[in-house]
Order: sequence, then structure tokens, then C-alpha cells
Amino acid sequence: MLNIAVIGCGRIGQMHARNIARHPRARLASVFDVDAAAAQRVAGALNVPVAKSVDAILASDSVDAILIASSTSTHADLLERAVAAGKPVLCEKPIDLSLARVNQCAAVIRGTKVPIMLGFVRRFDPGHRATRNAVRDGTIGELHQVVITSRDPGMPPVAYTEVSGGIFRDMTIHDFDMARFVLGEEPVEVSAQGSRLVDPKLMDRLGDYDTVTVVLRTASGKQCVINNSRQALYGYDQRVEALGTLGLALSENRRPHEAQIHKREFTGQAAPYLNFFIERYAEAFDAEIDAFVSAVENQVAPEVGFEDGRIALMLAEAAIKSAAEGRVVRVSELG
Amino acid sequence: MLNIAVIGCGRIGQMHARNIARHPRARLASVFDVDAAAAQRVAGALNVPVAKSVDAILASDSVDAILIASSTSTHADLLERAVAAGKPVLCEKPIDLSLARVNQCAAVIRGTKVPIMLGFVRRFDPGHRATRNAVRDGTIGELHQVVITSRDPGMPPVAYTEVSGGIFRDMTIHDFDMARFVLGEEPVEVSAQGSRLVDPKLMDRLGDYDTVTVVLRTASGKQCVINNSRQALYGYDQRVEALGTLGLALSENRRPHEAQIHKREFTGQAAPYLNFFIERYAEAFDAEIDAFVSAVENQVAPEVGFEDGRIALMLAEAAIKSAAEGRVVRVSELG
Amino acid sequence: MLNIAVIGCGRIGQMHARNIARHPRARLASVFDVDAAAAQRVAGALNVPVAKSVDAILASDSVDAILIASSTSTHADLLERAVAAGKPVLCEKPIDLSLARVNQCAAVIRGTKVPIMLGFVRRFDPGHRATRNAVRDGTIGELHQVVITSRDPGMPPVAYTEVSGGIFRDMTIHDFDMARFVLGEEPVEVSAQGSRLVDPKLMDRLGDYDTVTVVLRTASGKQCVINNSRQALYGYDQRVEALGTLGLALSENRRPHEAQIHKREFTGQAAPYLNFFIERYAEAFDAEIDAFVSAVENQVAPEVGFEDGRIALMLAEAAIKSAAEGRVVRVSELG
Amino acid sequence: MLNIAVIGCGRIGQMHARNIARHPRARLASVFDVDAAAAQRVAGALNVPVAKSVDAILASDSVDAILIASSTSTHADLLERAVAAGKPVLCEKPIDLSLARVNQCAAVIRGTKVPIMLGFVRRFDPGHRATRNAVRDGTIGELHQVVITSRDPGMPPVAYTEVSGGIFRDMTIHDFDMARFVLGEEPVEVSAQGSRLVDPKLMDRLGDYDTVTVVLRTASGKQCVINNSRQALYGYDQRVEALGTLGLALSENRRPHEAQIHKREFTGQAAPYLNFFIERYAEAFDAEIDAFVSAVENQVAPEVGFEDGRIALMLAEAAIKSAAEGRVVRVSELG
Repeated sequence: MLNIAVIGCGRIGQMHARNIARHPRARLASVFDVDAAAAQRVAGALNVPVAKSVDAILASDSVDAILIASSTSTHADLLERAVAAGKPVLCEKPIDLSLARVNQCAAVIRGTKVPIMLGFVRRFDPGHRATRNAVRDGTIGELHQVVITSRDPGMPPVAYTEVSGGIFRDMTIHDFDMARFVLGEEPVEVSAQGSRLVDPKLMDRLGDYDTVTVVLRTASGKQCVINNSRQALYGYDQRVEALGTLGLALSENRRPHEAQIHKREFTGQAAPYLNFFIERYAEAFDAEIDAFVSAVENQVAPEVGFEDGRIALMLAEAAIKSAAEGRVVRVSELG
Repeated sequence: MLNIAVIGCGRIGQMHARNIARHPRARLASVFDVDAAAAQRVAGALNVPVAKSVDAILASDSVDAILIASSTSTHADLLERAVAAGKPVLCEKPIDLSLARVNQCAAVIRGTKVPIMLGFVRRFDPGHRATRNAVRDGTIGELHQVVITSRDPGMPPVAYTEVSGGIFRDMTIHDFDMARFVLGEEPVEVSAQGSRLVDPKLMDRLGDYDTVTVVLRTASGKQCVINNSRQALYGYDQRVEALGTLGLALSENRRPHEAQIHKREFTGQAAPYLNFFIERYAEAFDAEIDAFVSAVENQVAPEVGFEDGRIALMLAEAAIKSAAEGRVVRVSELG
Repeated sequence: MLNIAVIGCGRIGQMHARNIARHPRARLASVFDVDAAAAQRVAGALNVPVAKSVDAILASDSVDAILIASSTSTHADLLERAVAAGKPVLCEKPIDLSLARVNQCAAVIRGTKVPIMLGFVRRFDPGHRATRNAVRDGTIGELHQVVITSRDPGMPPVAYTEVSGGIFRDMTIHDFDMARFVLGEEPVEVSAQGSRLVDPKLMDRLGDYDTVTVVLRTASGKQCVINNSRQALYGYDQRVEALGTLGLALSENRRPHEAQIHKREFTGQAAPYLNFFIERYAEAFDAEIDAFVSAVENQVAPEVGFEDGRIALMLAEAAIKSAAEGRVVRVSELG
Repeated sequence: MLNIAVIGCGRIGQMHARNIARHPRARLASVFDVDAAAAQRVAGALNVPVAKSVDAILASDSVDAILIASSTSTHADLLERAVAAGKPVLCEKPIDLSLARVNQCAAVIRGTKVPIMLGFVRRFDPGHRATRNAVRDGTIGELHQVVITSRDPGMPPVAYTEVSGGIFRDMTIHDFDMARFVLGEEPVEVSAQGSRLVDPKLMDRLGDYDTVTVVLRTASGKQCVINNSRQALYGYDQRVEALGTLGLALSENRRPHEAQIHKREFTGQAAPYLNFFIERYAEAFDAEIDAFVSAVENQVAPEVGFEDGRIALMLAEAAIKSAAEGRVVRVSELG
């Protein structure tokens, strides 16, 4: 049994705590949050202790590993401290909104053997993974083009948007990682276009976009198109398709059930999509914990690590630059 | 070029005339209807002569074959006369509403070499045929169960219903033929249930049903379930499924196009189904003409012939008996 | 928190124990099995005690309710004892294979206020329930016809089949309950057809069938067709459709994810269906526990109770009689 | 009846001739091709005369309108001559591969009242049109993003590719028109990326691409993404989606029928897509002729005209420039 402590008891931290508690080979050791009441609620429901402090967690012999689900600004610090304490860590994305800070963190942890896993949960979605596998195992031949559609059901709260680092760092970052997961090659060029359509006033104020398209290109010419919108009123739209020389693999949206209504005016009307990420990626969040537990048990590097987080952020930086300058940006320009 | 005359210029006759006119190896020789104005309308639109009489058609050297699309009560007579005149004939179903009359007709034409084809058009639908082929070519292994869903969009006019011979002879008859087409074995037992739900008053008056289920069974125990309703307000519902030892083949409904709407309250809302049989079975009607032309050209028996029409009517008779008596009826009981 | 003890630690008992353990308002009090090792395995994994005996469970103040998942032959006894002990009970179906024993049990518990829930889990499937709701809330108008397709992926072990009571009592019983759930009216007539196609030798020896169709009919003429097979190699096929005056509601099969492959030879190839009932009805099993907990908490009768189990068994008896005698059997004939 | 002569009897000309022949309000007046044998074959099959020359067609009183389906290099000349002769014209796309020639042609025909229709057939596809209508009638609210997937089943013959003008002028041009059709606003910026993946050697030699993505942007910030590939081995992939503030409209691919196979290893395997454009857009080609006939009858401007052809070519030019220079190109830069 792997004893895991959870730092951060917000919406995602709570979910991870619950998933750890029911994993057959993991145990929820304790939880912590700077908001003591939040920590207490989660601890009470799951019958585990509230840790006194992060230090207490890091020092505890009965904590084998740490899951970081606190606010973004704390990720890099906690990650460094966990590594220093020799505790394997599963850290929610992003590592930090600043590439400089991420690079600094990379320098601090360089050479560590402590397993570090980044929470790019979508890699663990059974449908997206089946699509990636169809690329990897040759089912669709040699890959040519990837199309990722990724739209949120609605704008996040303004307070969140203001500190999110912008759509490319906050939302598209998942798609940058998915692109790399499916492409199996590093993108070397980024071309991005941003529009302000959902909430133009807010976007103007923040210098951000709510509707973007990004085209990535690898050295061999493979392309990946990403379509994002902050507002897909019809639901959380999450699709991945991969075109190869022999065929197409396609991960379609998921509904809570498969009931339909057929009437005179229309046919096949189905339920709304699963909404939001906690529901849509429920199996993926479980599989992510499982992958982390397995990696620590087997002392192997987790499937998705620190460097994946760093590269996704670099792609975000390149996209920001591309959208601003109206030109293709080479990732190598970022130094 | 096969010169075909069309007898009967109602809705179905018109359609057949048009299909013949555009078939690459057929020519529409002439049309005839007891309603001279109706014949004139079709002839004018398609630039062909109106025949003076059925006799004129039968006697004409420039008529190679005949399509009978006149009213049901004339089918058997016309069929006998066409055979006597040595003209290959494609006759709309049913041959007659009376099994006695059909048997008499069978006696009259016994031994003829004149090609006779029955208009069981659904056999020529690409989707239903693909399903039958998956049975025949072993794709789904050995067949166990067939399920046919066949529902009309709405009640026919009362005047039609009164003379239609009842739902089993008029509507289910297509499904009896489809059952035989997919089963590849003769049903030996029939169990039918009828309800009066759509228009109970009319059904009570006519002693007919508007909602029926029929279970057919072959000597080897294969089953076929037929679900019929006179009113599927959501459209003309035409599905065929076949369960075998290795899998399932399924012919689903067809829409005029594949556009969908996704909204907050629902997803995947598609267009209404193709409606009614002239639209839904448009490709099948063309393929039927083609099969007739090919059979005559190649001097082979048409794929679906007089005996198929007779057996389908016997199954209808058995179903009527079964529904009335509340028991399984063996087809052999009909003598 | 409702403290629930689980009796029976086989495959289904284990699953229920796990579901209870993670339910937010339930606690797994203890488990019991006549096979002590089986009980110990479940108890160990879930960190709960093994009860000494059924008597100990019934006498325990720290057990608020009981879930019966032991072998079928013990259900009626345990149910009577639980009721006598005043413990609410969630009993797996069937109550017993003998209608006489079920009627006797009914007499014993008559008048009890102790909540009794029967494990007809499919009622809690989100897709099937949405279909039932579309009937109940008028979305599809007045109901005319229900079609239930229910096929197992493969024959159960011979040892199980020998004592299962036959396909109608063991397998179709779920569909009888689903029929009543969707119809919203009692079936009064049953017409059943059985074939021996999957394993004819075994079926001959047992006087059982492996491929059946059943048509139920309510007093108002509503029809329900059930298609069963013991072997659908393509997966656990679980569909429910309801035809009403205004439309069709349809609960389709469920896959583990929505990835597809499109190639030159075919398009839209998707993953196999969820297989078998523990996977397919995972959400339903959770919802079932939740419904039981809620019923006990609110001191209301569970949504599906003892009488539902008794009526489903009566329909099975009627189907057996109908298949044997080749005629429609009225439920009232069973006395 | 509108008497239409067809110039050009290749694959597309033949198809148009056949469609005209069966249109209820049109008559095929004559056909012409520089290859007399080709003209004779079409004329023979459809029982119409071969015209002696283009001049004869233009001078003929029994020709009301002209359809131009000859090779691309003749389009502009023929169009100018038809207009000079006062004959309404339906001209296959493109007008010419050279924007200069198109602009010259525009100058020549300026001010004419002769109806000119451009053969952007996809506008008449029922599915794509339903999607556009869902934008126009407000079903999906205010439009934000359009995604067009348009992939050919395989590379055209090398000889064709060499003179096609490149992928943007030859293939994407249809998508540029579709983008304008759905957007309902003019694109002002174009960003294009080209790769050489299907046949890198040929593409290198021609300076062309076989795999491209284009992002268009209107003045109000609406985006349209186009994904093209010269080789989708799984079939002719033709999809259009439109995201608006209230939902998504989506025109999916079309199959020849709706039969599926379900087996142990997969489920829902359907037939290949309709392939190639003559099959996929069969209804659209008929609707296009109908729209032309109606426009001439009603003396109104056809729905899609000369200027639409010119703008699509300008977008192609902008895309070529963008792909070459790695930057967003404003359409206004083209002068």
C-alpha cells in the first residue's frame, strides 16, 4: 500500500483524495490545506487525519508520496521541497505560469531519481489513449495530421481568468500535451490565432483571447490543429483525431448514457455531454492515480513528467508570441 | 435496350416509369391507366406514348416486358395475361389479397418460362442486403435470430385501409418476405399478436389491428421477430438485425443527410428519417428495375418471384389465424 | 450513516460490499459467507470484520440493514429472518426459483413495515431510466410498444445452468421487470417461443432454451417484445426501446470509450461493448445502493420491492407454460 | 423547359448532362467536346445531338443556357463568349488558375445582366446547407468558429496535379467557398501551413503541398479552420462544423447505407464513406442544376456567382503567400 498525502483540498484536491482512498493499492495518509476548514471537511468525509503542515507531511515516515493540488503559484516550491524530502510527487499542472520559474525549478531538481509525475490527466482517458495507440501500433499507418477540439462549457469566474495566465497557458496547455502525446514527435513551429468573441470586454482588458486556433508542426512536417473556445454551451467538447496513411482514429465525446429520443421533427437526440472535466475525465483521473502508484511501486519514471510540463508551457509561450506577431514562431526562438 | 410498358400510373407506377426512363439499359415503351388523364400526365412528362389498352400493350412488338402497378385486384389477371402473351413481368406486391386466387393463378402459370418478378423492393435496399449478405457469407456465423422493425409514419387513408386486406396482408407482408430473405430458411410456425391502439374504433370496425408483433420460427429453430406499427410519428422506421454465432449485422434507419445540432439540453440531434417508402427505398426501387432488366437480358429467373409472393401471403394468413386464436399456427395447417 | 452487512461474498456480494464502502452515507458493517475464506478476502480488502454468523448479524445493534447476495436457495429464508429481526433488506433477485416458495414467503412477511428492496438493478441504469422517464413524462406520448433486447455474451458454466431454473427464471426475469418498469401497466398475457441453438445438447438434456422471444400484453393492448439469447459473441447487448404516439425513446448499448477507427474497408469501428453486467451496470449498481440507503433513511418503501420480484417470477412461469404449449397464456391462469 | 447545352463531356460534363436530362424543368439541348468521340458517347446514351461547335451552340435559338465543364483553361474564354451571346451560364470552378485572368474576365463581363453561376457544388449539399442554415437562422446563436475537414481519398493522377495550380487553388478552393458560405462574412486574414507527407518527392518537384491547414479570420474575429489532405485512405472525408454561442451544428460524413457489423473485437463497423465527389455530392449536383434552372426561370442572380469564384481564388493566393512566408497574410495585400 502506497501512503499518499494530498496537499490542497479544493475541488480537484478533494477528488484526488477520494480516488486515492478507493484505489486498491493506495491509502490516503492525510490531507492539508491552508484553509483549515476545507482540509477538515475532506478529512472528515474520508476518515483520515488533517496534516499539521506541509513540513509535517514531508517529514512523516508514514507518507510515501505526495499529491500537489494546491494553487498554481505554490506548485514549483512544493515540488522542489517534495523532491528534497525524497517523496515521489504527482503535481497538478501547470508547474508554474512563468517559464523562467519552471526552468529554475528544473535546475533545482536536475538529476533527481525521485519520481515526478505531472497531472496531464487527458493522456489517461481511455478514448484518447486508444487513439494514440492506433497511431503508435500502426493501425492508421504513418501519422500525418492531428486535430484536437477542446472547448470548455463556459467562461471560468473572472477572478480565475485574471490570474490564469491566459488561455494558452491555462487551457490550451492540455492540448499542447495531448498533441505531443499523439504526435510522438516534438512540435518545432507554432502558429496561433486568437479572437475575442465570448467576452470581448474582459479579453480586451486582460489582453487575452477566448477563441483560439493553433497549428503545430513537427520537424518531419506532421501537423496538429487545436481548436479552443472558452464557451461551448452545448457541453465540454473533447475530441481528438489522428489521420494516418492507412486511416483515421477518432476519440469522440462521451455522454452519461446512451438514451435517445426520436420525434417527428428530429431523430437521435441524445443526452448532453459529460460536463465538466471531473465527470468527463473520471476514468482518466482514476487511471492517473493508478499510473502514479504503479510507477512508484516499480521505481520507474512516470509516463508523463516534469519535462512534459515544461515543454507544454514553452509551446504556450510560442503560441502567445505567434498570436501577437501574426507569424509562425519556432520553438527554438524561446531559447 | 429493354422496352418496358407500365400499367398503372398512380404514385408507384409514376415512380417506376421515371426509373425505367433513366435506366441505362431500359426504355419506357408506353404507359397505361384506366384513368386516361393520369396516364397522360405521366406520358407527357416523360415524353412517351399512352397505350390504347392493355391488349394493345400485350400485342405490341415494341414492348419487351411489362411492369404492373395498377390496383391490387387487377394484379393476378394482368399477370396471367402477360404470361400468356409471353411478356416478362415485374408485378407490384401483393399478387392478390386472396390466397385462393393466388393459388389459382399459380395453377394457370405453372410451368411457364416467362420471367416473373414480384415487387418486394426491400430486398434491394443496400443496407438490408448488406445485412443479408453478412448472414449468407458467414460474417456473423450461423444465424440464430432476426429482428425486423417496420413501422409506417402514419395510418393510410381510411378508404385504403378498408380494402387493404388488413395489416398482415398489406404491411407485414413486406416483413414476411424480408424474414425469408434474411433467414434463408422457410418459417414453419407463426405466432402473432395484434392490438388496436392507434385508431381503435376503425380497427374494431374492420376487425383489424394497427400494432402487431409476429414471431416466425423455422424448422431448425431460427427465430424472426417482427414489430409493426401503423403510426411511428418519428418517421418511417425500417430496421433489420440478424444475430449469429459470431456477431450481429444491423441495417439502421437512413436520413436525408447527416447534419446534427448539439445544444445545452441535448446533443446529436439529427434530421428526421427518410419518409415515406418512395424516398426511403429510392435506391432499392432503382436496383429492383435493374435486377428485372438483368434477369430478362440473361434469361434467368428473377431473384424474387411468384412463389415468394405466394408464401408471404400464406404467412400473412397464418398470422391472422394465430392472432385470432391466441396460439402458434403451423404454416402447414393452411393446406 | 447506514451500517449495512453483506451476506454472500461471491462476485456480486464483493461488488456490493465495495459499493457500500464508498457510498457517502453508508458504511460496510461486516460481511459473511458460508465459505469463510471468501468472506475473509473481502473483509481484508475493505478493512471490515467478518461476521460470525447470520444470527450474529441479525442480532447486532451495529447493523442497520442487510444486503443478501448469497446463493438463490437461501434468499427467501434470509429475507424472512431479516424481516423478523426488523432489519431493512436489499435482496438480490430472484427471491426463489419456486413460485410456491415465494408465495409462502409473501405470506410470512405480509404486513411488515420493514423496507424490502429487490435487486432489479437495471431499473437504475441511467439510459434505461431515461427511456422510462420519456414514457412517464409524456415525451413520447401514449405508449404502444416496448422492445427489449437482452443478450448475454456467452453461456454461463454448465453447473450454473443446471440449477438456474431455466432461461425464463434466470435471465428473462430481468426483462420481465424491465417490461413492467417501462410499460407502467401489468402484463396480462404472455406468449413465448424457445429455441435450442447455442448448445442444443445441453438444452435438450435440461428441457431448457438458449434463444427465446416473449411477447407480453397489457389489458389495454400495449405490447412488449423481449429478445433473448444466451450467446451474443459481440458483447452484452442491452437495449430498451419504447414507441409512443409522439415518438420513440431508445436506450442504446454502452461502450467503455468512444474511440473509433475508419479505414478503407470500413468506417466508424468502435470498441467492444461493456461486458459483462458488473461493468455494464456499474452506475446502476451504485444507484441501486443509493436508492436503498435513501429509502431506509426516509422510511419509505423502496422503488422496487418484494411484489415486483414475485410478479416477475409469475411472468417467467407463464412464459414457460406458453413456450411448452404453443399458445398465449393468461397470467391469471397461474392462480 | 430550359434548353441547356453542355460543353465538355469528361467525367463531370457527362454527369451534368445526365442530371440535366432528368431534371423535370430542363432539357438537354446538345453536347460538345473537342474530343468528338467523347461527345458522341454522351450524346448517344442520352439521345441528344452533338453540337458542331461552340459557335453553333452560342448561335442556336434552341439553346437557352450553357453549362461549361470543359478543361479549366477554357473556362474564362467560354464564359466571356456565353455572356456576349446573352446565354445564361453555369461554369464549373475554377474560373481560371490565374487571378489576373479572372480579374480581366471580370472587367469584360462587368455590368452584364446575364445570369452567371459558379459550380461550387458543396453549397448545395443538404447536410452542409443544414449546417449553414443553423447559423443563419440563429439555431446556434452568434457564430464563433467554423471547422472544415476536407480530405480526398487519394492523390489525383500526376499529370493532373502538375497542371492543377496547386492544392490551394485546386482543392482548398472548395473549402474557401464553404468557409464564406458558412461564415456569412468575408475573411480578411489568411494563415496557411503546408506539408509534404503523402508524396514528398512530387510535392518538392512541384513546390506544392499535400497536407495543409488554413485558418481564416473575418474582421469581427470569427475563425475558420480548414484541414486538407490529398490522401484519406479511409474515404472522401467531408465535414463542416459551426460553433456558435448557443450550440454546434455539424455536417457529418455520408455512407451509401447504414448497415453495421458488431463482433467480439469491435462494434458498429459501418460501410466505407461515399467516394468520390460524384457519389458523395450526388444530391448536391442535382440541386445545383435545379438552382440554376430556377435562377434563369425567375431572372434572379444565381446564389453563387462569378465574384464568389474570384474571391475564393484570392483566398487561395493569400494562402499560398502565407504558407511560403510563414505569416498571416491580409487579403487586402493582394491588391
